[in-house]
Amino acid sequence: MAKKFDFKIGKTMGNGAIGRAGVIRTPHGEIQTPAFIAVGTKATVKALAPEQVASLGAQAVLANTYHLYLEPGPEIVKVAGGFAKFMRWRGPTFTDSGGFQVFSLGAAFGKGVSKVARNENDEDDADGRSAKNVHAAPAKIDEDGVTFTSHIDGSTHRFTPERSIQVQRDLGADIIFAFDECTSPHDPYPKQQEALERTNRWAKRSLTEHERGGSGQALFGVVQGGKYRELRESSAKTIGDMDFDGFGIGGSFTKDDIGTAVRWVNAILPADRPRHLLGIGEPLDIFLGVENGVDTFDCVSPTRLGRNGALYTARGRINVWNARYVSVFEPIDKKCDCYTCENFTLAYLSHLFRAQEMLAATLASIHNLRFLVRLAEDIRKSILEDAYERFREDTLSSYYGRSYEQLRA
Amino acid sequence: MAKKFDFKIGKTMGNGAIGRAGVIRTPHGEIQTPAFIAVGTKATVKALAPEQVASLGAQAVLANTYHLYLEPGPEIVKVAGGFAKFMRWRGPTFTDSGGFQVFSLGAAFGKGVSKVARNENDEDDADGRSAKNVHAAPAKIDEDGVTFTSHIDGSTHRFTPERSIQVQRDLGADIIFAFDECTSPHDPYPKQQEALERTNRWAKRSLTEHERGGSGQALFGVVQGGKYRELRESSAKTIGDMDFDGFGIGGSFTKDDIGTAVRWVNAILPADRPRHLLGIGEPLDIFLGVENGVDTFDCVSPTRLGRNGALYTARGRINVWNARYVSVFEPIDKKCDCYTCENFTLAYLSHLFRAQEMLAATLASIHNLRFLVRLAEDIRKSILEDAYERFREDTLSSYYGRSYEQLRA
Repeated sequence: MAKKFDFKIGKTMGNGAIGRAGVIRTPHGEIQTPAFIAVGTKATVKALAPEQVASLGAQAVLANTYHLYLEPGPEIVKVAGGFAKFMRWRGPTFTDSGGFQVFSLGAAFGKGVSKVARNENDEDDADGRSAKNVHAAPAKIDEDGVTFTSHIDGSTHRFTPERSIQVQRDLGADIIFAFDECTSPHDPYPKQQEALERTNRWAKRSLTEHERGGSGQALFGVVQGGKYRELRESSAKTIGDMDFDGFGIGGSFTKDDIGTAVRWVNAILPADRPRHLLGIGEPLDIFLGVENGVDTFDCVSPTRLGRNGALYTARGRINVWNARYVSVFEPIDKKCDCYTCENFTLAYLSHLFRAQEMLAATLASIHNLRFLVRLAEDIRKSILEDAYERFREDTLSSYYGRSYEQLRA
Repeated sequence: MAKKFDFKIGKTMGNGAIGRAGVIRTPHGEIQTPAFIAVGTKATVKALAPEQVASLGAQAVLANTYHLYLEPGPEIVKVAGGFAKFMRWRGPTFTDSGGFQVFSLGAAFGKGVSKVARNENDEDDADGRSAKNVHAAPAKIDEDGVTFTSHIDGSTHRFTPERSIQVQRDLGADIIFAFDECTSPHDPYPKQQEALERTNRWAKRSLTEHERGGSGQALFGVVQGGKYRELRESSAKTIGDMDFDGFGIGGSFTKDDIGTAVRWVNAILPADRPRHLLGIGEPLDIFLGVENGVDTFDCVSPTRLGRNGALYTARGRINVWNARYVSVFEPIDKKCDCYTCENFTLAYLSHLFRAQEMLAATLASIHNLRFLVRLAEDIRKSILEDAYERFREDTLSSYYGRSYEQLRA
């Protein structure tokens, strides 16, 4: 009998680049990689019906364990047959471990934990709320697990590696993640090292609980280590030696180290298994991730930015609140193939945002998600056609107005 | 050449009942009547993409002239090719005259103007805001028109019959309404009479401006007169004698006079033209309207109630916030054929509402709109099959737990 989960590499970049195009097979369908995974935080991709998510080309949905654990609770989702059935998503699914939200919404750190912060907008957490001061009590970490308070009602909860895997079993995704301790990029080396070693021990416990449960899900181990090469490489070696079905590259980065940290890790992780870069979604980051060996990405940016009126175009991000768009009777991006661009004008979107109509969020989210999903599709195509570098240069210089080299400088 | 707009009666009820099943033909398609028209206040049916509106069986959309006049303004909508093209609705369209909102949002009356008030929820105005005290300055009526302040920014505006028709020409609906003065059901006879006589004069001016413009739109005259039979009949006679393409039955009712007032009017209005009952949408009201000669209805209730979590079922309205629904893994109504009921459970809807997810509003609106659209479809079928009274009894006794006679008592 065929394995329910596997990964096949179609083509690897040449000239020393370790990026690749592949296919992840899951019980609910294939994911052609590189791929951008839509985030469905609370078992819904915000403002979109599942058919809209599928129509824009999203191949898979990632839900957040922390959020679904708090509401509606894993018991409800389990009875529903898992979060995919609950929300009527028919494709492959992921859940994260809950680690990131426990630490970021749990305010474990003075500055909170966030993903790459390029500008103010990007400092919101995965739920679109500010990670700062959500509630007073910090998460408390001990060797066994983490005690944290709900950002909804302040109630106390506890996650251990075992509990995270059990909750993810109830949530029923095809691909789940080992429970990890998430650090701040501002944390010093000793703290990073301590967290990393605990994450390694938690990875083993996650694997053991996963094997005990026999859910048939694929379990990905999570590599941590912040910006420190030694820690990243140590983590990759330890996690890569364990019997995971794939890997997550975790936690947090500063804007300069996404390329380097990812490369250190992926040079060590076994190449035959898929790698997911958690919570990263800027166009440049996608390129940096892919060429350094990442297969899948997820990020709330496209939907969160969309709800705020920031829209991706081939020539960079525009803000729909700009007065000039009120009378622009053209799509957001003439070359875009999304439902929004094929049907509606910037003038209409401007109106919907100003009138505070919910359809504004729907149309903007469809467009932004399609932008990143298509970007990953096009990167895949360019790898298969040996045209990656040219595609990268054309895309980045159009989007940022600067070359790849300039952006990397 | 065939007329762009006409109305054909397929069958009239027998036994003295004046209700009928017919077909309204417009440049953008037919409306099989009786029909419930979806409200797209600001050129969007709240929380729904136009394809979702079409999929649930809505045949036409009615937008509010007052709202579109204020934002984005008729100039923008005109350049877009009318509100239908702006919002990508491909079927027939209506706009109201702006009269109701000018008077209700303009706080022309101490108590505000509202449609039939059966309970507290129903007292919101067409925009889902409370009509009470929206802003301080009341609308000022003179013979020529109405001066009112925007509920958005307090700026001063003026509508005359001519201006209303001009704005509606820019908005470009297939069916538009003459500008009318809308009274409160609490207004005494002399005030109702004065308003009525002015509405009659404004009707004539609306017609003149309409003919001058040559837009090819169909213009409906509006009958007013409150709860006074003499006024209603006088209005029906005056308006009915004018060269309108159809009629709106206007303004406001108290819960007891919807059947009577509508009947007084429709016994007089020419039977060969369609009649629209403005802003009424409770199931009992639909039956009372149809059997007393109404062809089309519009109301914000289904979408507004839906956004609040109140859901229609064959056995009456339920509230999704009720704790028991959290673990009900069944659709809102097992017999419902809407997208929401075919795909999602009450448990999922409960989760979406509690998690404040926008999809909650979308799914609830689809369900509630489908409920009223289907009710009108089924009433039409029952008229064509000579089974109206039986269908009415079955439907009302199931929905309200009381017979038609009990409900009328």
